[in-house]
Amino acid sequence: MSDQPSAQRVYSYLGPAGTFTEAALAQVEAAQGQVWRAVHNIGEALDDVVSGRSDYAMIAIENSVDGGVAVAQDALATIPNLRIVGEYLVPVSFVLVARPGTRIEDVKVINAHPVAYGQCHAWLGAHLPKHEHIPASSNVLAAASLLDGSLADAAIAPPTITKHHDLEVLATDIGDNSNAVTRFVLVGRNAPVGERTGSDKTSLIVELPEDRPGALLDLLEQFSTRGVNLSLLASRPIGDELGRYRFVIDADGHVRDERVADALLGVRRFSPNVVFLGSYPRADRREITTTDEHENEVFVSAREWLDQVISGEESH
Amino acid sequence: MSDQPSAQRVYSYLGPAGTFTEAALAQVEAAQGQVWRAVHNIGEALDDVVSGRSDYAMIAIENSVDGGVAVAQDALATIPNLRIVGEYLVPVSFVLVARPGTRIEDVKVINAHPVAYGQCHAWLGAHLPKHEHIPASSNVLAAASLLDGSLADAAIAPPTITKHHDLEVLATDIGDNSNAVTRFVLVGRNAPVGERTGSDKTSLIVELPEDRPGALLDLLEQFSTRGVNLSLLASRPIGDELGRYRFVIDADGHVRDERVADALLGVRRFSPNVVFLGSYPRADRREITTTDEHENEVFVSAREWLDQVISGEESH
Amino acid sequence: MSDQPSAQRVYSYLGPAGTFTEAALAQVEAAQGQVWRAVHNIGEALDDVVSGRSDYAMIAIENSVDGGVAVAQDALATIPNLRIVGEYLVPVSFVLVARPGTRIEDVKVINAHPVAYGQCHAWLGAHLPKHEHIPASSNVLAAASLLDGSLADAAIAPPTITKHHDLEVLATDIGDNSNAVTRFVLVGRNAPVGERTGSDKTSLIVELPEDRPGALLDLLEQFSTRGVNLSLLASRPIGDELGRYRFVIDADGHVRDERVADALLGVRRFSPNVVFLGSYPRADRREITTTDEHENEVFVSAREWLDQVISGEESH
Amino acid sequence: MSDQPSAQRVYSYLGPAGTFTEAALAQVEAAQGQVWRAVHNIGEALDDVVSGRSDYAMIAIENSVDGGVAVAQDALATIPNLRIVGEYLVPVSFVLVARPGTRIEDVKVINAHPVAYGQCHAWLGAHLPKHEHIPASSNVLAAASLLDGSLADAAIAPPTITKHHDLEVLATDIGDNSNAVTRFVLVGRNAPVGERTGSDKTSLIVELPEDRPGALLDLLEQFSTRGVNLSLLASRPIGDELGRYRFVIDADGHVRDERVADALLGVRRFSPNVVFLGSYPRADRREITTTDEHENEVFVSAREWLDQVISGEESH
Repeated sequence: MSDQPSAQRVYSYLGPAGTFTEAALAQVEAAQGQVWRAVHNIGEALDDVVSGRSDYAMIAIENSVDGGVAVAQDALATIPNLRIVGEYLVPVSFVLVARPGTRIEDVKVINAHPVAYGQCHAWLGAHLPKHEHIPASSNVLAAASLLDGSLADAAIAPPTITKHHDLEVLATDIGDNSNAVTRFVLVGRNAPVGERTGSDKTSLIVELPEDRPGALLDLLEQFSTRGVNLSLLASRPIGDELGRYRFVIDADGHVRDERVADALLGVRRFSPNVVFLGSYPRADRREITTTDEHENEVFVSAREWLDQVISGEESH
Repeated sequence: MSDQPSAQRVYSYLGPAGTFTEAALAQVEAAQGQVWRAVHNIGEALDDVVSGRSDYAMIAIENSVDGGVAVAQDALATIPNLRIVGEYLVPVSFVLVARPGTRIEDVKVINAHPVAYGQCHAWLGAHLPKHEHIPASSNVLAAASLLDGSLADAAIAPPTITKHHDLEVLATDIGDNSNAVTRFVLVGRNAPVGERTGSDKTSLIVELPEDRPGALLDLLEQFSTRGVNLSLLASRPIGDELGRYRFVIDADGHVRDERVADALLGVRRFSPNVVFLGSYPRADRREITTTDEHENEVFVSAREWLDQVISGEESH
Repeated sequence: MSDQPSAQRVYSYLGPAGTFTEAALAQVEAAQGQVWRAVHNIGEALDDVVSGRSDYAMIAIENSVDGGVAVAQDALATIPNLRIVGEYLVPVSFVLVARPGTRIEDVKVINAHPVAYGQCHAWLGAHLPKHEHIPASSNVLAAASLLDGSLADAAIAPPTITKHHDLEVLATDIGDNSNAVTRFVLVGRNAPVGERTGSDKTSLIVELPEDRPGALLDLLEQFSTRGVNLSLLASRPIGDELGRYRFVIDADGHVRDERVADALLGVRRFSPNVVFLGSYPRADRREITTTDEHENEVFVSAREWLDQVISGEESH
Repeated sequence: MSDQPSAQRVYSYLGPAGTFTEAALAQVEAAQGQVWRAVHNIGEALDDVVSGRSDYAMIAIENSVDGGVAVAQDALATIPNLRIVGEYLVPVSFVLVARPGTRIEDVKVINAHPVAYGQCHAWLGAHLPKHEHIPASSNVLAAASLLDGSLADAAIAPPTITKHHDLEVLATDIGDNSNAVTRFVLVGRNAPVGERTGSDKTSLIVELPEDRPGALLDLLEQFSTRGVNLSLLASRPIGDELGRYRFVIDADGHVRDERVADALLGVRRFSPNVVFLGSYPRADRREITTTDEHENEVFVSAREWLDQVISGEESH
């Protein structure tokens, strides 16, 4: 029992218990023993952070099969004062569950979130070609409702569902891609950027100047000319008219790496709107390297050289 | 009564009557008086074309607010022997409908497709802050089901819904962006590319080589170095592992334009997989121009020069 | 009479009086009333500066017809601790002179510096097709020696030659290009870079890394990506083996312009050897402008933004 | 004795016998037993070819220490209907020669071509610091004239000079760089380009469009984007005004290589003036390779793909 409940940190996540998002949150060491707040969607989770109801929100940002999570990307692009502080990967595997006693040949109606449903397209076509689909806002809710008056015969759910609900697994691993992975990010409020770990990622959202052909090429060159690799470049409509996009970027490295900082300066100079979303440790812990000419000390020594040149100490 | 029913062309579209897709199909002159086949989803529409049940499928490909339609982009990337032959724009406007007699203050549960629901976020937050959302696979179906035992009190639907169903409009223009537009494409089977109109678009899907940093920059340069502007560059996961993408590209111009053909050759040379989706008239009828040095005759005269140079006729 | 002769500055130049180099030096306001030291060649002039015998050397660096002056470029590339402090343009016009009484039809042998001789090729071919040429180390010396036992009948010289020597002009304006201009630079020892004037030029000599294809492209991009235009890019052999070059560069702008400083940092990071030769006022007094995104304040505000981003004050 | 003297080919070269140019011509197998015509300068040699007096001219084009031979580059840029058909390398080594009986300490005046003189700068500074220099139009002539009334005490000449003249060698290997090499090209009249050997070089002279910043970058990209490496990029003034240059380019590969042909088409499309100087075997016999994506068959298969795409046979 703590007499300082306010000292506890609050983490919002897409609930209820049993979701992949909860599995991502379970990977966060600092979140253990803190308050976990289950919410209904990504917008609500981020709103908790903005309003101060929570300290952090765990949100899905990309799936290896389905692509970027548009609502998460758009929210990060438009809600100010948010920062990504960590990245987590959760393997995505689906089971088909039903009320105890149901046989697979009895399944006529399936309740599932459209994304999960889409990822099980091949298995369903092969084994239940005549089923009907009722879309759900959460697979876990869909599964739970089987025991609570659902019209459906079965639901698609994460394998952990049976820990929470008394359901029977009719089939396992029914996803089309057995290596499917969802990438999550932990989002907090603005704060000083953490230290570099050598295995970092920097996330940005960049709007291109309107009236300049080749602007995307220029954007990419800001990174390539400094030896900074991009692991993600996704476009999202700005929304005001067809054909106007902002770009969601994940760059290898940390803003405290000289080359990344320099690339960000370059981007900022020509973009009418850059959102810095954070520099944080990578989920894959892969060490980020670059060519010799883009190492930190090369940047430092170039600056020293320029100072000497201007002061007239040395020209060679 | 026709004694030659096989002479009629069949167009599949996301039904039922009243959808935005039907509004797109209504723009196709050649489709008037032909067979319109309402289907349940984009996959089914394209499958109709592949199997020969239909000649064409009208599918949504991009929304100015919500972005690319992932399922359409992924289907075009993976289903062989399809060709885009036309592009159509439909303004997207939403109304809130209910059973006759319903008052807006009685609306507690709203049935709507998640994309439409997302586009009405602001209006709903302001006017019905406490509502619940039931996701639907089609707005028109959601609206129709209000009269057929739906648990919902209201539905989000296109303004044309009242032509087809006896529903009451509680509010009009509830979308967050009053300029929202959805872009549709008409897809047929492989056929010779049509003639250029001077206002054309060429669609491609390109996979990048795996082991080459800067490959995206190289891809973009294939176009920029020939004066070809891109109106769309979207990434989609290939699906086999996180971090591998294919790019959906709309280029200004026609494959019968020399500069576009040359750019496609450049792209094909370094990409392990290029899908040519078609060259077709633009919905906006905007004339595509380029700089003098990328006009057709410049390409032709360069080839003539090279022939002379090789044959030794002329060196200047 | 001054009792502080050491307070006078010494300027070395390619003499004797009457050369184009002297005409360039005559344009230097600060040189009026100082010591002018005529030397025999560019190497000697620069050596005077290095050794302290002179404060400045005026040397020819480029001719609009004949191109870069190789010996000057190579000397600046290899002699340390020199700085260009000014640039001067001298129109190049040639006359054919002879001993008084000589008729043009009597001219059989012409004495001239090979560069001047080359620039009068067309006139000589048309008017004196059968002449012989004796190369000279200086046109002024060649002309002077006509009165001092020279074997030649005529010499090619600057129009001012008759101010210094009692010679007869047989033909004027005999150069192939009546707009020919020679560009001179005034060179001193290392010293703090002067202030920007808004009409400046920055000179560099850059060696490319040996084992990197595309290195020249990367070098040029360091400038173009910062909106810095190059008015000169010339290659000179490094001299150790065929195919290895250093590049002589004149960039628009001053090292105290943010964009130029940033470009120099970029160049320095990848080049094994950069020689900064100076930032100095342009001879043509043309104001150097750039696009809005490369103005000084854009660089400053990008740095402020990055500081805020890292300290967590602001992400938008 | 031949009764068909007209069947013999004539080769012009910078004479007299003993020059480095003659050594280059000695490397040409096809020139053995043909007519060798010694001329006084490069212009005369090329003029012989243009007028038909000779079939070929051997001319120096670049020296590893002194750089490009401006007069040769400018002549090739402006004289139409010439073609380079071969490349030859001659090591450059100098000796100091004098009349028999001369001691090195007696040498006060040295006669030498300015380029050779420049290449012996260090040795002369160390061993004959007080000498005077008389420039000559040819080292061999300077040496020969020592026996024919020359005012000079010694001359700088190729080591082979003693084969032709009764002179005494005072010092050998007096050049500053013992690896110095001069590159020569054999020039004929326009003719069909020869077959590729796999070890080829293609020479061009390219003028940049006047009013386009970044044009040089665009020029270089035409090659890099097709995997074509440049072994030479030199600028020469066009001559009409300061700051306007044409570029002398040697590209790896043969115009019958698909990638080189494609690059040339690209260059031709944006340059107001391209001079194709020829594709010919390299002196160093180095095999030219490129990355897989720029091999000939990749170009061919891309064209086949595009044809299929346009005819509607295949989209994948």
